[in-house]
Amino acid sequence: MEIDKLLSDLIPKNMMRRGRITLDEQISPLKDLLNRRRFPDASFSDSQIELLLTLLSAMDTDKDAEAARVGEREGRVASPLVARLAGNFVHGIGRSGHITAPQPKAAGASLMQKLTNQIAIDAIQRLGLPNIKCGAVLPLSTGMTIGLVVSALRREHGVKQILFPRIDHKSPTRGISLAGVKEITVPTELQGDAVVPDVSFLEREAKSENNCAVLSTTTFFPPRESDPVKEIAKICSERSVPHIINNAYGVQSRKIMKSIMSAIDAGRVDAVLQSTDKNFLAPVGGAIVVTTREKFLEEIVKTYAGRGTAAPVFQTLAALLALGLTRYQKLRDEQQENRKLLEKELGQLAESISQRILDVKNPIACAITMDDMDVKEIGGRLYNRRVTGPRAVKSGTPGSCIDDYPHDYLVMNAAIGATKSDIQKAIKKLYKELKSHK
Amino acid sequence: MEIDKLLSDLIPKNMMRRGRITLDEQISPLKDLLNRRRFPDASFSDSQIELLLTLLSAMDTDKDAEAARVGEREGRVASPLVARLAGNFVHGIGRSGHITAPQPKAAGASLMQKLTNQIAIDAIQRLGLPNIKCGAVLPLSTGMTIGLVVSALRREHGVKQILFPRIDHKSPTRGISLAGVKEITVPTELQGDAVVPDVSFLEREAKSENNCAVLSTTTFFPPRESDPVKEIAKICSERSVPHIINNAYGVQSRKIMKSIMSAIDAGRVDAVLQSTDKNFLAPVGGAIVVTTREKFLEEIVKTYAGRGTAAPVFQTLAALLALGLTRYQKLRDEQQENRKLLEKELGQLAESISQRILDVKNPIACAITMDDMDVKEIGGRLYNRRVTGPRAVKSGTPGSCIDDYPHDYLVMNAAIGATKSDIQKAIKKLYKELKSHK
Amino acid sequence: MEIDKLLSDLIPKNMMRRGRITLDEQISPLKDLLNRRRFPDASFSDSQIELLLTLLSAMDTDKDAEAARVGEREGRVASPLVARLAGNFVHGIGRSGHITAPQPKAAGASLMQKLTNQIAIDAIQRLGLPNIKCGAVLPLSTGMTIGLVVSALRREHGVKQILFPRIDHKSPTRGISLAGVKEITVPTELQGDAVVPDVSFLEREAKSENNCAVLSTTTFFPPRESDPVKEIAKICSERSVPHIINNAYGVQSRKIMKSIMSAIDAGRVDAVLQSTDKNFLAPVGGAIVVTTREKFLEEIVKTYAGRGTAAPVFQTLAALLALGLTRYQKLRDEQQENRKLLEKELGQLAESISQRILDVKNPIACAITMDDMDVKEIGGRLYNRRVTGPRAVKSGTPGSCIDDYPHDYLVMNAAIGATKSDIQKAIKKLYKELKSHK
Amino acid sequence: MEIDKLLSDLIPKNMMRRGRITLDEQISPLKDLLNRRRFPDASFSDSQIELLLTLLSAMDTDKDAEAARVGEREGRVASPLVARLAGNFVHGIGRSGHITAPQPKAAGASLMQKLTNQIAIDAIQRLGLPNIKCGAVLPLSTGMTIGLVVSALRREHGVKQILFPRIDHKSPTRGISLAGVKEITVPTELQGDAVVPDVSFLEREAKSENNCAVLSTTTFFPPRESDPVKEIAKICSERSVPHIINNAYGVQSRKIMKSIMSAIDAGRVDAVLQSTDKNFLAPVGGAIVVTTREKFLEEIVKTYAGRGTAAPVFQTLAALLALGLTRYQKLRDEQQENRKLLEKELGQLAESISQRILDVKNPIACAITMDDMDVKEIGGRLYNRRVTGPRAVKSGTPGSCIDDYPHDYLVMNAAIGATKSDIQKAIKKLYKELKSHK
Repeated sequence: MEIDKLLSDLIPKNMMRRGRITLDEQISPLKDLLNRRRFPDASFSDSQIELLLTLLSAMDTDKDAEAARVGEREGRVASPLVARLAGNFVHGIGRSGHITAPQPKAAGASLMQKLTNQIAIDAIQRLGLPNIKCGAVLPLSTGMTIGLVVSALRREHGVKQILFPRIDHKSPTRGISLAGVKEITVPTELQGDAVVPDVSFLEREAKSENNCAVLSTTTFFPPRESDPVKEIAKICSERSVPHIINNAYGVQSRKIMKSIMSAIDAGRVDAVLQSTDKNFLAPVGGAIVVTTREKFLEEIVKTYAGRGTAAPVFQTLAALLALGLTRYQKLRDEQQENRKLLEKELGQLAESISQRILDVKNPIACAITMDDMDVKEIGGRLYNRRVTGPRAVKSGTPGSCIDDYPHDYLVMNAAIGATKSDIQKAIKKLYKELKSHK
Repeated sequence: MEIDKLLSDLIPKNMMRRGRITLDEQISPLKDLLNRRRFPDASFSDSQIELLLTLLSAMDTDKDAEAARVGEREGRVASPLVARLAGNFVHGIGRSGHITAPQPKAAGASLMQKLTNQIAIDAIQRLGLPNIKCGAVLPLSTGMTIGLVVSALRREHGVKQILFPRIDHKSPTRGISLAGVKEITVPTELQGDAVVPDVSFLEREAKSENNCAVLSTTTFFPPRESDPVKEIAKICSERSVPHIINNAYGVQSRKIMKSIMSAIDAGRVDAVLQSTDKNFLAPVGGAIVVTTREKFLEEIVKTYAGRGTAAPVFQTLAALLALGLTRYQKLRDEQQENRKLLEKELGQLAESISQRILDVKNPIACAITMDDMDVKEIGGRLYNRRVTGPRAVKSGTPGSCIDDYPHDYLVMNAAIGATKSDIQKAIKKLYKELKSHK
Repeated sequence: MEIDKLLSDLIPKNMMRRGRITLDEQISPLKDLLNRRRFPDASFSDSQIELLLTLLSAMDTDKDAEAARVGEREGRVASPLVARLAGNFVHGIGRSGHITAPQPKAAGASLMQKLTNQIAIDAIQRLGLPNIKCGAVLPLSTGMTIGLVVSALRREHGVKQILFPRIDHKSPTRGISLAGVKEITVPTELQGDAVVPDVSFLEREAKSENNCAVLSTTTFFPPRESDPVKEIAKICSERSVPHIINNAYGVQSRKIMKSIMSAIDAGRVDAVLQSTDKNFLAPVGGAIVVTTREKFLEEIVKTYAGRGTAAPVFQTLAALLALGLTRYQKLRDEQQENRKLLEKELGQLAESISQRILDVKNPIACAITMDDMDVKEIGGRLYNRRVTGPRAVKSGTPGSCIDDYPHDYLVMNAAIGATKSDIQKAIKKLYKELKSHK
Repeated sequence: MEIDKLLSDLIPKNMMRRGRITLDEQISPLKDLLNRRRFPDASFSDSQIELLLTLLSAMDTDKDAEAARVGEREGRVASPLVARLAGNFVHGIGRSGHITAPQPKAAGASLMQKLTNQIAIDAIQRLGLPNIKCGAVLPLSTGMTIGLVVSALRREHGVKQILFPRIDHKSPTRGISLAGVKEITVPTELQGDAVVPDVSFLEREAKSENNCAVLSTTTFFPPRESDPVKEIAKICSERSVPHIINNAYGVQSRKIMKSIMSAIDAGRVDAVLQSTDKNFLAPVGGAIVVTTREKFLEEIVKTYAGRGTAAPVFQTLAALLALGLTRYQKLRDEQQENRKLLEKELGQLAESISQRILDVKNPIACAITMDDMDVKEIGGRLYNRRVTGPRAVKSGTPGSCIDDYPHDYLVMNAAIGATKSDIQKAIKKLYKELKSHK
């Protein structure tokens, strides 16, 4: 808007200039973002993000008072609030049969989605995976996204079974099952305290004549350690077996990202999946899939049936912009410090009750043994004491990713975005519970 | 809050009483809603809906300043705006492996979801399907929901192929394919202008030894008519073949709802699927699945892998409350009138250009022949003239649900929520385009 | 923003063009508004108004992340919500000692204020007073604005007393008193049912040697009629006595506006004051003063001591834009119809209880006699029955603007923005109360 | 709401309990606030404040869908946005002729106002003036509030002239003039670098037979120092002369507050006035007047003519709650540190350019001499360099509060809410400007 030209007679020129500087200061990062479409270095303010979303959503046809709407779905809403609850992106995203295709009725939502995808890819590249090619933010959980990816493998690559190093978590299994593909669990074994996959099993089974693919995992709770993705990638490369990595909350960890980068360089990785909420402080509901081949991404996005909700996409866009690279790296540093603090404080507590920390490599979580204690009951009491997120596992019950894990134990996380005070409060409360129920 | 007791010394009692009446007037429908959990008769105001959502979201643990968060996902957000863009329901809904299970970190979102499901079921029942038992609002498109349902049929009922009366629409096909099940297209045939499924083919193939199920459809564009769902339900019942109905935007039509009710009464219907946006003026992104058996619903919701985005659920809740039964019935009446108007005005236009209206039963849409005209080009020009939603189909190209439909034609809809002026403007612009390009 | 150029490679060109049309459709009225600064014919949508306010407030220095703030007041706020509650115009308006002067720290608020003033003046001109010259929207009640105007008259014109035809309303009296000027009440007399000022008294007293000015009034409740402003203006012109008109809620009435226009043409009117809320459906808190001389306006605005709250100004701007001329004229038509309806229905009720309508010229309100009834008690009961706004006056008590008005009576208004249903409900409830307490 | 009872069958009981704890945690401070009406120790979150304002505004009659509105002003608004821009308090506050009287149509706004007044008084008491009795938050600038107070003195106490120790600021003078009272400037004198009032003049003139009152000032820019309010209070007490203190931004300074407390204890202080924005980080537009006698407060609030805008009141309420005592004390500590930093850094800069810091007692601001430099031009350049708030004063021009101040100088403030970085950036930029223009 040429506010300055139009109104320079209304207020003094130097004041107008000053106002214009302030306005431009806020708008120029938006222009830059639209121009370059990269994960910004500096954080955007909430009002900048809001302005961007306002302008984009204003391009959708439901905002056009002059339009004549004679389709069966036209972004009509029951009340203004309903539109606001959708960030005014009421048409959703994509076209039936192509979730990232531009939607003619929603030029703004289409731009918003493209922008989000490009920024998300750039973020993943700059946060550790420069060797991925492309990607998309999907309005689905990571588990459902596994389903889409596996379904694409089945349809386009004839995959009939997924070799899946054991993780005691329902979502991936559900995702594989959704796609109608058989899951072959790769067994795990004990190495000291740690539970790791039996790679020799995987080596035996991973053959292209088996019509199989491998789903490896980087992030889980102790005593489970990350899968050796580089080793697996090499095996997959040798055997021409597709390989997808569930990197659910691994973006926060420089170490994990490095291991994936090496895996891509050294072997075969078809796709890497990550959660938007666990990595980028967005609300639950989205996933980022990145691939090393454009064609494979295309196959995946065509697997989504129908148009999708735009919410997880614009929420992720907002989160990425509110972060920016500089703040994200700072958050990563804090996460590392908190992880150390967690181990230190949990170690002291362990000592005081004659238990110990499990010796397991895990950049985010840490576990304390609870042998000869009612760990489930302690977990329940922590919940009532407003400690959220710890995992209490009894030996012999699922959760350890192995059948007869020799310890009862409690896991706590020092994940990205958690504060020092979260860690300290949780341990203090655990300490209290342990003392009061001795 | 006992504002009245606490503050009666601050302002005069009768004024306090008056203020209290006004407040209660707004809050009592909320209480009633929580108490009875039914589709309300009267519309809720936006501020009432906002208050309800505020109170519910305030119960989630991310709002608890005293909580110690040591999980890997704790509803942390990159900025206040990011939370607001998620209606403050940042934990999403469900648990991994059960999309409608209560989420311990999100008591409020869990309540919100239960409430939405109950209100949605009640709405479907009171709007024409009293004989359905239960249901859920899913944060997925109708097409993806078809995928979930088919996947549940495969897993729990051994279904290997879906008999699908031909509809030229990608979403259902993608949904079936996602689930790894084979699609058997039931061919169609011409009856006058109308395209209808060849039921005899379906009778031949629908046998339980074929491990098949039927996916029928109630809403599509002319010249396709609705599938005869009652007849199909009877066949399915006789042959013990599961039957699901894609009722994408059929809730708006009393006629279609009646036919489904009869189908359920007279034969076998396992589930009925509908879009939230096309029927209830919610943003794109959700679907309502209702079933006649609780067990089947349970199987379906367990198919979703991971936690989902809460957005389509609270958006649908807001839309349902902003509507209410009375307003919805009025909108249905308007839809019927607009449908008549559409046919009348399109008929007049047809006559003036020596074309005619296709003689096809369709309670929402109406088609005009465009023989010997460049129908595709006209469609493109309408888009540029800000007419959204018409479908321009050339004879011999997909869209007619039959291979060699004898006409070129253009379809317009008089869907729920459209206005008289939408119809009139669209036809006027069509008229202009036709005249100016003669 | 050159979104189109930058992003035409992201989504198809024709879609981009379509999105751009939709966006421009919304933004071009804003540009036009800034360019022409006139009361628009068409209503602005809430999202258009919001965008305008967002862009303007973004120019204030508190939004400048790079600014170094070393003043004693810098628009710092206790939380983001606090700023939002001020529409983000946290610097207020004006400079100390000049409420309409541009504020160097707030280029945006300064523009907003200028824009509001110009649009408000244009509105007043086009709604009936083309012969006023200039004006301003003040963040003060009409009564306080009377205080400012009277103070300016005292300071600049040596006025020592205000001749004020009796109105039983505290605000004007308080305003005159605030300015330290003596009020001379011009007595009223009975003409049939109507109470009118004794103009002969005014003629006797209105002499320039008395250092007096006249404050006349156009709007009050029956039995008081409007002051004969044209006659008064002529007297003031002849005697060189300043004349200000309190036109509190007279803008809504074409008749009243016409009488003021004639008064200006035929005699002397220095300023006309009107409420923003009663005329323009803005929240309570602002007034519009218009004058026939620029110098006098300057004297008035310099009377405000300090910077003021921006709220009544941007609220008035929003209200003016949400109205627009076309909608305002429609609301005026409705007001006239409702006024007729009020008289008709109140007349029928009067007849049924052997009372009558007072024969008083008043374009907004209407009064029914309540002789031999406990009118105060009835008024109280109506309040409890949720009827707001009626005035119940007992003979011999203040309110009638004359000492011994011969009737008890109840007044109701059909003011701008009221609905037919307001009128009907109020009369129905009155009817019920009268019946149940006979 | 009994959400827990009603819905305990919907989600597990322990989860319901957990949700309830979270909700109560947020709501109980609100209850406590309404119950005790004190300045809270802990800050309220924005969502807590929003919920409070939502519930209060929901009590006003404009929210009552059942109400019949037949008044001339009924809180009707031109669009939903207009109401939102007024925090939904559309009726404003007060009654005509009594700005703090409860308004029958607005029970919620009335409560809000009472609550704000009580919290503001409590804040002032706990921040240093325990010996004041009562007070009110007015929707007016401090200058206009001076006008109200002076007008009340004139009307009720026969005051005809105000003895006003010279301050070169327009607002107080305008306020006095508004009220139609004569201002007698008390001259100042030089004490070293400092400018202080000539108290002997005041002693001579302050006699009750003069019908005078004194307006003293605590906060202004160097070289002006605070008035010796204790000494003045004693004189006023002895002579039975009313005394009001303009404490515009003195609440932030413990020292200034202490001096006022002593003045009240030792002599006569009728009222103390303070700005809401400069002290409590609220938007510009409100003032807090506190008095030592209830009757005097009553006289002041009755001086406001008409109902006022509610905006400055609820903005102040929000700011007070967002602060709380603990955070306010921390901000005061920071202010003191920043003031020291300002003097230190400005001192170093002064030395480097052969100027010096003025030796003036001022707890907020600090001045550097600019002798033989074009100080006005430097001020202008700083504005363009985005330094806001410095005052550049040329010897012999107004601003120094004395006629022939011997220096040119530049003032900077370290006011409450300013950051260390504000100070450092400003000095750095000044340094640059000085160097580049040598």
